Amino acid sequence: MGKSPEEEHPQKTFGWAARDKSGTLAPFHFSRRENGDDDVTVKILYCGVCHSDLHSARNEWGYTFYPLVPGHEIVGVVTKTGNNVKRFKVGDRVGVGVIVDSCKSCECCDQDVENYCPQVTFTYNSLSRDGTKSYGGYSNMIVTHQRFVLCFPDSLPADAGAPLLCAGITVYSPMKYYGLTEPGKHLGVVGLGGLGHIAVKIAKAFGLKVSVISSSPGKESEAINRLGADSFIVSKDPEKMKAAIGTMDFIIDTVSAVHALPPLLSLLKVNGKLIMVGLPDKPFELSIFPLTLGRKLVGGSNIGGMKETQEMLDFCAKHNITADVEVIRMDQINTAMDRLAKSDVKYRFVIDVANSLTE
Amino acid sequence: MGKSPEEEHPQKTFGWAARDKSGTLAPFHFSRRENGDDDVTVKILYCGVCHSDLHSARNEWGYTFYPLVPGHEIVGVVTKTGNNVKRFKVGDRVGVGVIVDSCKSCECCDQDVENYCPQVTFTYNSLSRDGTKSYGGYSNMIVTHQRFVLCFPDSLPADAGAPLLCAGITVYSPMKYYGLTEPGKHLGVVGLGGLGHIAVKIAKAFGLKVSVISSSPGKESEAINRLGADSFIVSKDPEKMKAAIGTMDFIIDTVSAVHALPPLLSLLKVNGKLIMVGLPDKPFELSIFPLTLGRKLVGGSNIGGMKETQEMLDFCAKHNITADVEVIRMDQINTAMDRLAKSDVKYRFVIDVANSLTE
Repeated sequence: MGKSPEEEHPQKTFGWAARDKSGTLAPFHFSRRENGDDDVTVKILYCGVCHSDLHSARNEWGYTFYPLVPGHEIVGVVTKTGNNVKRFKVGDRVGVGVIVDSCKSCECCDQDVENYCPQVTFTYNSLSRDGTKSYGGYSNMIVTHQRFVLCFPDSLPADAGAPLLCAGITVYSPMKYYGLTEPGKHLGVVGLGGLGHIAVKIAKAFGLKVSVISSSPGKESEAINRLGADSFIVSKDPEKMKAAIGTMDFIIDTVSAVHALPPLLSLLKVNGKLIMVGLPDKPFELSIFPLTLGRKLVGGSNIGGMKETQEMLDFCAKHNITADVEVIRMDQINTAMDRLAKSDVKYRFVIDVANSLTE
Repeated sequence: MGKSPEEEHPQKTFGWAARDKSGTLAPFHFSRRENGDDDVTVKILYCGVCHSDLHSARNEWGYTFYPLVPGHEIVGVVTKTGNNVKRFKVGDRVGVGVIVDSCKSCECCDQDVENYCPQVTFTYNSLSRDGTKSYGGYSNMIVTHQRFVLCFPDSLPADAGAPLLCAGITVYSPMKYYGLTEPGKHLGVVGLGGLGHIAVKIAKAFGLKVSVISSSPGKESEAINRLGADSFIVSKDPEKMKAAIGTMDFIIDTVSAVHALPPLLSLLKVNGKLIMVGLPDKPFELSIFPLTLGRKLVGGSNIGGMKETQEMLDFCAKHNITADVEVIRMDQINTAMDRLAKSDVKYRFVIDVANSLTE
């Protein structure tokens, strides 16, 4: 039998973990590996609360291994670097996102899409290359291979910038890959939550015309006046939806709950692209006629590679893009999770780890 | 009330039509418009029997207007040309495919994808721009705007070349649009029927590695030895399917019956593309996880524009690509339709219209 989480590595670590599918988080002592030659040790300042943290804490995807320390939108300060590390030094402000390791030798890794490496190690609930389990950023520190550490631009605030490490790259990467960045083109953003509100900001920075498609009429004014969207379509309003038929070049769909795709496909022009970035746990119904008759496609995308994530951070720094966040203390996380489950947050909780995680 | 099909136009025409959802075809007198300044009149020699003809004759998509004269894989000889027609002269061998008109002024028409023009006129069961109904190639002649008439290359046989006008362009166009033509890449072709067998031939001409995925083990030898496929995977054989997981760059799915997409998506590599060219009448189940986690896409495509259709004919002429056909007489069409419904044809029926359509 393996050692306990507290004993398997030399560096004592403290965080909050979920122990069962109630998802309730509570203090948890574990350990991290010694800082190796290629490693960077990071004292965690802030960690965003991603919807995946909630899915995983409550085992909604069915593959959570407890105890689970969530958190993959991490901003912190370097406290130790290995002998081979040249890019970072002690005191640098850095980010760690959704992945912390990969094989570094497959086609995906060679092409800088480590996020699709078959042996990728996710920041939590994943197998590390040494065979131990990975634990996330709801904790005081993390040890990460340098390839998976990001320079966090000076001009980005550590709290409101943290969600870019997952939410930001999740919407930025498909915009680049699927060619959704041509100025003047019309993008629909489905769902105005953690992902959606950043998608609007990034899309506007690319010069796109942006329409938000949401089931919540109450978000209209905020979408337009605060986030800069060009229009707002209530998805349950048949008249508004009808008026928008065939007007969009692309749609980014951030909604994880199962919903109807045909109305969204109908909003697309010929050659239109519907890109799914959520991870719904149930299958969708897909009619093939709209795809065939309009040469449309439904594509997916999952975060991004390290090079592109750095590019995204620099892009956001240049365009002053951050998440709209509500900063919480570690001991408020369970209430925050309940509120997140009801979409009662504008638009991302971020845990002030450094100032509130105490033993 | 409008005039009868026989009286609405000046040119008397004879063909075979379905009158109700039994789909049974029988002799039918109708008429076609006078040859206008931009028109080409074509004496029909051969007409392929597409699966769409069967779907439409039996109203399986729910929008057939009877009487219906099917047929959109037409090869014939020019008998009349309008004053503005320079590209064709009497006696030329030409083709007419799935579309016979469009608005000629929208974005799609400007970009040579008339097939996606919102006002496209399909060769049969569609509204012509003069408000009358279109009738297809199971008839002695057709009048078509010159833009929608194709030069039929000398080296292509009129009978075995006819199916290229629908089946050929249906598989060629998505291969070009979705970038499925890179030599050495691995393409899966789902279904070895009218579309599938031509997809194999065209893909081999592009230099692809081709695997046929079929539910019929009996087709293996033919797929490999006759059509030139590199491998054959029985879709119901879990071992064979498992061995092929993650090996394909693209898949063209030609099967119209509802079937499971997840096993096909699993055959694709990261960034893989599953292209649907059939027109199934029921929705599919689509899991989003494989799309997201492997950055895969499901796309559609429907025939092609006129310029690309000409390019495809020239490509097939250059590479000696034709359909494998069984030539029938007009009075054998009902038996042929029954056999087509059971996939009992290798791989396309073609009607010898000129020699068997008699009043």
